[in-house]
Amino acid sequence: MPITPEQAAEIAAQREVTQSTRRAVAPELEEALYTPIEVLDHGFVRVIDYMGDDAAIVQAARVSYGRGTKSVQNDAGLINYLMRHRHSTPFEMCEIKYHVKLPVFVARQWIRHRTANVNEYSARYSILDKEFYIPAPDQLAAQSVSNRQGRGDVLEGEEAAWVLDTLKADAETAYSHYETMLNEGENGDSERQGLARELARMNLPLNVYTQWYWKVDLHNLFHFLALRADPHAQYEIRVYAEAMLETVKQWVPLAYDAFVDNRLGAAELTAGQIAVVRRMLAGEEVTQETSGLSKRVWSELQAVIAE
Amino acid sequence: MPITPEQAAEIAAQREVTQSTRRAVAPELEEALYTPIEVLDHGFVRVIDYMGDDAAIVQAARVSYGRGTKSVQNDAGLINYLMRHRHSTPFEMCEIKYHVKLPVFVARQWIRHRTANVNEYSARYSILDKEFYIPAPDQLAAQSVSNRQGRGDVLEGEEAAWVLDTLKADAETAYSHYETMLNEGENGDSERQGLARELARMNLPLNVYTQWYWKVDLHNLFHFLALRADPHAQYEIRVYAEAMLETVKQWVPLAYDAFVDNRLGAAELTAGQIAVVRRMLAGEEVTQETSGLSKRVWSELQAVIAE
Amino acid sequence: MPITPEQAAEIAAQREVTQSTRRAVAPELEEALYTPIEVLDHGFVRVIDYMGDDAAIVQAARVSYGRGTKSVQNDAGLINYLMRHRHSTPFEMCEIKYHVKLPVFVARQWIRHRTANVNEYSARYSILDKEFYIPAPDQLAAQSVSNRQGRGDVLEGEEAAWVLDTLKADAETAYSHYETMLNEGENGDSERQGLARELARMNLPLNVYTQWYWKVDLHNLFHFLALRADPHAQYEIRVYAEAMLETVKQWVPLAYDAFVDNRLGAAELTAGQIAVVRRMLAGEEVTQETSGLSKRVWSELQAVIAE
Amino acid sequence: MPITPEQAAEIAAQREVTQSTRRAVAPELEEALYTPIEVLDHGFVRVIDYMGDDAAIVQAARVSYGRGTKSVQNDAGLINYLMRHRHSTPFEMCEIKYHVKLPVFVARQWIRHRTANVNEYSARYSILDKEFYIPAPDQLAAQSVSNRQGRGDVLEGEEAAWVLDTLKADAETAYSHYETMLNEGENGDSERQGLARELARMNLPLNVYTQWYWKVDLHNLFHFLALRADPHAQYEIRVYAEAMLETVKQWVPLAYDAFVDNRLGAAELTAGQIAVVRRMLAGEEVTQETSGLSKRVWSELQAVIAE
Repeated sequence: MPITPEQAAEIAAQREVTQSTRRAVAPELEEALYTPIEVLDHGFVRVIDYMGDDAAIVQAARVSYGRGTKSVQNDAGLINYLMRHRHSTPFEMCEIKYHVKLPVFVARQWIRHRTANVNEYSARYSILDKEFYIPAPDQLAAQSVSNRQGRGDVLEGEEAAWVLDTLKADAETAYSHYETMLNEGENGDSERQGLARELARMNLPLNVYTQWYWKVDLHNLFHFLALRADPHAQYEIRVYAEAMLETVKQWVPLAYDAFVDNRLGAAELTAGQIAVVRRMLAGEEVTQETSGLSKRVWSELQAVIAE
Repeated sequence: MPITPEQAAEIAAQREVTQSTRRAVAPELEEALYTPIEVLDHGFVRVIDYMGDDAAIVQAARVSYGRGTKSVQNDAGLINYLMRHRHSTPFEMCEIKYHVKLPVFVARQWIRHRTANVNEYSARYSILDKEFYIPAPDQLAAQSVSNRQGRGDVLEGEEAAWVLDTLKADAETAYSHYETMLNEGENGDSERQGLARELARMNLPLNVYTQWYWKVDLHNLFHFLALRADPHAQYEIRVYAEAMLETVKQWVPLAYDAFVDNRLGAAELTAGQIAVVRRMLAGEEVTQETSGLSKRVWSELQAVIAE
Repeated sequence: MPITPEQAAEIAAQREVTQSTRRAVAPELEEALYTPIEVLDHGFVRVIDYMGDDAAIVQAARVSYGRGTKSVQNDAGLINYLMRHRHSTPFEMCEIKYHVKLPVFVARQWIRHRTANVNEYSARYSILDKEFYIPAPDQLAAQSVSNRQGRGDVLEGEEAAWVLDTLKADAETAYSHYETMLNEGENGDSERQGLARELARMNLPLNVYTQWYWKVDLHNLFHFLALRADPHAQYEIRVYAEAMLETVKQWVPLAYDAFVDNRLGAAELTAGQIAVVRRMLAGEEVTQETSGLSKRVWSELQAVIAE
Repeated sequence: MPITPEQAAEIAAQREVTQSTRRAVAPELEEALYTPIEVLDHGFVRVIDYMGDDAAIVQAARVSYGRGTKSVQNDAGLINYLMRHRHSTPFEMCEIKYHVKLPVFVARQWIRHRTANVNEYSARYSILDKEFYIPAPDQLAAQSVSNRQGRGDVLEGEEAAWVLDTLKADAETAYSHYETMLNEGENGDSERQGLARELARMNLPLNVYTQWYWKVDLHNLFHFLALRADPHAQYEIRVYAEAMLETVKQWVPLAYDAFVDNRLGAAELTAGQIAVVRRMLAGEEVTQETSGLSKRVWSELQAVIAE
């Protein structure tokens, strides 16, 4: 379970409190505010705060004095236009703040996105909880033979069982030694000093869970989601991106639709690929050999134009 | 007057609407929301939206599940500690969005602060209003003789009158020619094509007003305010910074107090200056000659330690 | 002429000095180093310094100990792959520094790109030169009737003559008053104090020239060039982007080729546009009406697939 | 040993090659270029490339056409002034690129500095080496009793021995299981598929070594070093900062001196602390009780003014 009863109670208490505001309000997201969406075996994503809504994008694009909005249809058209032509600054005018619990190796991928604000739980000051990511059996994949960074078939039988057992056992051992090194709390041994927290943590494995507050504007969130909700992203970060996509849909439904049409479902064709498509549309039978494209670029084109 | 009756009506209408939210609310800032604070002769600053409050800083620092706050005194102490030790990430968890109307030469200074989101009114798409900054007589200062970037005495008599008249007349002429070049609207001459907006604007002077939405997190806002509310900042940007300081006080009063004590009223002493202060406190009579400091560094020290 | 004989002599003197280095060297760019490329009537771009070359991109991608490079063909393939799949960090490992002289209204567009380092000539400390951008007659375009941000036909006859004369005359007047307000130098009037530089500058028009040092990594430079070398960019900034493209070709020829194929000549198709292309390739006759696309999105597709 | 003989040979080969350049050259840093400085038990820092020198800072501050430099004394004074008054943009005009090998838990602290370019060795694509950080006995410290984030006394006797043995044994076990899960190479078992690299890595502990290319401008490097060469920084990152400080001294000696005087050895006094110093200098005997400062702020003042 990702949260304790005490934490659930704190969250419930905060959800109870409503106040009056003159700011833009996103009703669907309000409904979901603070509630954790479970991700992986012990992780979650929950929205802590947000600023702006679809109308705020329009308002910024028009630098307007009031709400700036005209009609939903007009707004949808403008937002779609802004997205398609990569006018990014109006989307930067919306901001969202998440609380995320995630394995450290996922956190290390995530943090490469630098245009966000992060405040992470510190293992220098505090003691990490005993929670580790252990993949579900259907995610225990072999190395892909065709793709250096992808996954192949799911492991089975003895091999799968041994991997799962080993991941669990090594994590248990590491955490147990971490606690003994710290030598804190009721079970502490008064004969020993205990190792500094900032040192003891180094014995923990990369699948230990950490957590952080992560705050980002909508433009940079879309950039993050375009990369991390992509099928090429590692499964363990993609599930976070997918959960966040749902919150974006609740928050700014028009921008979400524009994102799906113009980014998630879109494809960029190189100059060489465009030339091939033109020849095809003119009726020419083009093969990889006659295309002038490398095998890889040719197959990437096929993935776009073939159903 | 910085805004038209139509704009005032739009603002009033938006202030009328209140909704219920589960998010953190800053009551004093809600009171002031959307209302323009007049700055210079035609400019303003107004808060359009905000995210978080003092408790959100504490909440982020603790990566907590609920409000995170314990008592106002505890919160004040923690915020003060975070500010003094430059733990900047919890302050980044608050965000504010302004609508600002300002002269172009002020906008050019302002935009050097890169860690903010900006959406400016476009003179490629739209026609700029006929509004120019003309300094008040008490701000019509001579070049400082002692400081290459400062102002000296206020101009008087004929010189002052000529400068003011000339600034006004040149702006009038430039704007009149801008309109004629554009050749748009009712008074347009059907014999002429009219120059593209993106070209005609180049005839306008640097004191023409522009406007933008400017969104920033609290840490970077404090950095901006520390530089721009400083006495060495140019008067025409300092008055904007001072107006914004008031909104920060309404928004996050504990962080505001910590900022005033630890930044605005603080001073950084160099290693050499610290050595001199130690000698003085040990009872030694130190002069610039015996201090080992350059004249400039010595006088900067005097400004800190002498009342 | 964009530079004075004294400046030309300084540049020539700096070009004379060569030293030995262990760093990566880009021979073609060395040949061009420091020399101004003229842009517009008084502007220029010149490369002041650079870090890295094509091999440095490869080296970073491989986190290698030595040069990292295998063969030119391998390197070209890897760079092309990195560009196509938007692996941006290896390109960030190259850096370039320009000295640019440009009109203020162009500088204001340029500075919106925030991921660069800028040091601009300060009109608070220094006096701006008497140089203004006056468009060449073939760039004196009318507002486009079809496109709110574009240019239409070139102005002709009396209208063109009047615009050019007015731009020149207004700039002359403004600069003359600027000088009188400053009241500095040999022709200063001892009866007057002179207005502070930071104030007097506000009388200058937006086509006055400024200059700055601008330093950026290759990834962000490509992002800048993709937007500003695009036909939709305003002519007056596009000519700078085109001059810089030439320097990139001299500096990192493999990355330049990858950029031309995968960015400059590429096109992004939306999910809706891809669906239409698939129907067309399957032999269906698709019109705008049957496409499900809006007129604008349909015509944008035509621009990609029709020659 | 941090590098293999093959890597040493690659480095030596690259150091052999010198070429002619027109760019600014920093002779002392050239001498050290590419050579690893050993840090911790298996880590290193080495300079891969750099852009600019002390004169480049001056040149940028003056937006000059040639070298911009006048005399070493003038340059030193200007650089000192720029540093003291936090004119950061001229320092941003210098850039340096490092290759760093470091434990993952150090990398996680380091990456919080977002204003740098990073390219890390990928454990999704590649196999990590069998190298773990094991503290030297004199760094095996207890948790501080007075400071939540600091270290106390060094562990001794049996406790120390047990911690070191356990850190080593757990790392050995984890790596051995990592290799078995991967099932790659000569010793691979053909009966098993092998787990994907992106999954198997999660079994490794946080003291495993990773490596990256890290590129940063001089202003942001100084910010990093001010925080990480500080006595409050964790020892394991501080030793990297200290090694990098040496490279800065070789690269830009004048900026280095200004940094030591105005940052590293400097102290910021709060408004309240300044008031106390003034009272002391006026001859008053001030105690914590009469100071109006909290105990913590008082003791921080003592640390500045007492020798």
